[in-house]
Amino acid sequence: MPTEREKMLAGQLYDASDPELRQERDLCRANMRLFNQDDNSESRADLLKSWWGSTGKNITVNPQIACDYGTNIHVGENFYANFNCTFLDVCEIHIGDNAMLGPNCQLLTPLHPLDAQERIAGKEYGAPITIGDNLWLGGGVTILPGVTLGHNVVVGAGAVVTKSFGDNVVLGGNPAKIIKKLTDGS
Amino acid sequence: MPTEREKMLAGQLYDASDPELRQERDLCRANMRLFNQDDNSESRADLLKSWWGSTGKNITVNPQIACDYGTNIHVGENFYANFNCTFLDVCEIHIGDNAMLGPNCQLLTPLHPLDAQERIAGKEYGAPITIGDNLWLGGGVTILPGVTLGHNVVVGAGAVVTKSFGDNVVLGGNPAKIIKKLTDGS
Amino acid sequence: MPTEREKMLAGQLYDASDPELRQERDLCRANMRLFNQDDNSESRADLLKSWWGSTGKNITVNPQIACDYGTNIHVGENFYANFNCTFLDVCEIHIGDNAMLGPNCQLLTPLHPLDAQERIAGKEYGAPITIGDNLWLGGGVTILPGVTLGHNVVVGAGAVVTKSFGDNVVLGGNPAKIIKKLTDGS
Repeated sequence: MPTEREKMLAGQLYDASDPELRQERDLCRANMRLFNQDDNSESRADLLKSWWGSTGKNITVNPQIACDYGTNIHVGENFYANFNCTFLDVCEIHIGDNAMLGPNCQLLTPLHPLDAQERIAGKEYGAPITIGDNLWLGGGVTILPGVTLGHNVVVGAGAVVTKSFGDNVVLGGNPAKIIKKLTDGS
Repeated sequence: MPTEREKMLAGQLYDASDPELRQERDLCRANMRLFNQDDNSESRADLLKSWWGSTGKNITVNPQIACDYGTNIHVGENFYANFNCTFLDVCEIHIGDNAMLGPNCQLLTPLHPLDAQERIAGKEYGAPITIGDNLWLGGGVTILPGVTLGHNVVVGAGAVVTKSFGDNVVLGGNPAKIIKKLTDGS
Repeated sequence: MPTEREKMLAGQLYDASDPELRQERDLCRANMRLFNQDDNSESRADLLKSWWGSTGKNITVNPQIACDYGTNIHVGENFYANFNCTFLDVCEIHIGDNAMLGPNCQLLTPLHPLDAQERIAGKEYGAPITIGDNLWLGGGVTILPGVTLGHNVVVGAGAVVTKSFGDNVVLGGNPAKIIKKLTDGS
């Protein structure tokens, strides 16, 4: 029998009130508090290296952050996120090298059933977010559950990315559409 | 003669610098600080029960929240709001049972005159927000003053709801439109 | 030879790791912490008067704010900004008299090269934001780098302003478009 944690990470319906998951979320909250009260960029980076699923050596994240677990966030080398980003990681969030996130971005993996009776019965699920190298998100960008983005993707401020896109594109709007194609990332 | 508070709640032009209203907002700020510094979900729930206009027995709200008064917020049983939601309640905000709000949602009741000279003269007003049972707001949803939503409404992440909708719909976009109709909430 | 600070303010490619700029950002972070921990509206106003580039006598800003420098923000008389606004001021932000900003607004001047290789090489740049008198921004409005707005401009909640507009208009949507023209600001 899979655990609730295993079901959650596999994108299946799971029970978020499971004691193991509650305990992990409590640990995440404790790490969030440490992070958000810490004025030192280097010690914040050290905390992320010991807390998040995986990071590169060079990581800069400005407070305040909000996460569900943190342990399901995997970012590459040279990761930068500006103020007040939200990473809801009930499924895995993978971001490649050299990412730059503007302030107030949201990477959201949780989902609930559309059917109201099923939804209020309490089980929920999620879908992973997977992004390539050289990402640039403008301020206030929202990435929805299940979205995959390729390499060299730029997303304009305030865009809401509801579906997947490949390499070398500039996205904008709500829902986000391709507003420019880049040639070899340029 | 109606008080400024009575005019405010009735959606009429009022003077926000009124001493009674200032005092209520100061009390709200004190409650916000208590709430946002409190790591314990149960004592945060107790604070909301004593502070907000009305709540059910089961209420979970993650920090940080921002409100104008709090006393004009009325939510039903099984209310859940994720991180960093904003509830500006110069007019009443009513939400039914079984609501789930994603992070960074904004429920906004305040308005100002469109006429610049009238606006800078200082009087303002608002319009209530009224929502039925079984609401699900994705992350970063904004609900504008005067909006009414029915039962079993789902609003996609990043949507801006500028007008009212009935039961059993999925909304998305800016301005939000119906992107799916649900049958009996399913 | 211009300094990195001079290049930054002129909208040219600059190196944000420059020691002078790092020191200014550290000072800004210290001021942000003081501001965001301060429950008193009057002492917060005093701090902004000594910190930001220029302000009027009457300024009210609710916590939490986020800025890059603060010293490049210039606002006129009777400035009001509600909760959790973000002002990224690598280039100058100018706002006239009598501005009202809703919660969660973002005024963003930083830019990065669209070319991925150029972007990850590290140099960045910006473009100023210039806004006239009698501005009203609804909640969650985003203003992009290089935008100029005239007098008596109203921007609906959740709008993303990607280009410049003149006087006496109501904007809304993503990207923001004129949804109403005002006559002499009315």
